[in-house]
Amino acid sequence: MKFFEDIAVGERHELGRHTFGADDIKAFATRFDPQAFHVDEAAAARSHFGALCASGWHTAAIWMRLMVEHQRREDAARRERNEAIAALGPSPGFRDLKWLKPVFVGDTITYAMEIVEARPSNSRPEWGLITLRNTGVNQKGEPVISFVSVAFVERRAAAAGDRA
Amino acid sequence: MKFFEDIAVGERHELGRHTFGADDIKAFATRFDPQAFHVDEAAAARSHFGALCASGWHTAAIWMRLMVEHQRREDAARRERNEAIAALGPSPGFRDLKWLKPVFVGDTITYAMEIVEARPSNSRPEWGLITLRNTGVNQKGEPVISFVSVAFVERRAAAAGDRA
Repeated sequence: MKFFEDIAVGERHELGRHTFGADDIKAFATRFDPQAFHVDEAAAARSHFGALCASGWHTAAIWMRLMVEHQRREDAARRERNEAIAALGPSPGFRDLKWLKPVFVGDTITYAMEIVEARPSNSRPEWGLITLRNTGVNQKGEPVISFVSVAFVERRAAAAGDRA
Repeated sequence: MKFFEDIAVGERHELGRHTFGADDIKAFATRFDPQAFHVDEAAAARSHFGALCASGWHTAAIWMRLMVEHQRREDAARRERNEAIAALGPSPGFRDLKWLKPVFVGDTITYAMEIVEARPSNSRPEWGLITLRNTGVNQKGEPVISFVSVAFVERRAAAAGDRA
């Protein structure tokens, strides 16, 4: 992770992409969202969706994985450049999650995040608080998911203090 | 599902409970949230959490499963009473998701939902729109997750129209 001071409002990063296969969709839904249109092609064809589609929680969980993998790649590149790596704190939560379109079998979703706010934390002065707008867009350019997340990120001052 | 007209603001339903085991936590996190404190006990002990804990997306996904199972039990009871069953439409999303406390190995989370708003849909007159406050509380009575979700529910008028 970059330090809080190095994060600029307006920065945008593509996190990666994922193609949702039928087995993938059904395996997630069987465990966590066993509604007929997420686990059974024939039932899905008769539903308001018209075809098998991913649980919205699945679409969200893939964002999480791609975000973790993105941060790992970025941190590995920082290590190669001998740069210090900032700690990423726990997430207090999310707001305004919207499932905008169904994700059907074979759809490839490209996930991105944009920094929309960055401010020092009042309650925890060694941390900054960043607000991200996260989106997933399908291969036709249609947004399928969007939400706003908040995360604590280490400040340089705190890191310098640790070393002093 | 009950019909929109039969749903009262203030209704509260316990959805069920789930005990998070270490294997369960690690299996979810390995696929969707492979941060060290969700997949490795020793790394988790050194983290700000102090012990292995569930991905917040895992805590949320279990809510989804218990909600689906709750609706199925309710619909089965309606069928036994020869009552009509209302359709539940797609969810447009949720808001204000908060992870309030970590969910550690062995924690049992009890999930509940409460109807906080119910109104006819302007854009889709055959549906009503209900707003739910969802919570998960651990065995010590501490809330660990809360969020507000919105769902479309069929109106009686629409069902009567179908049959006319």
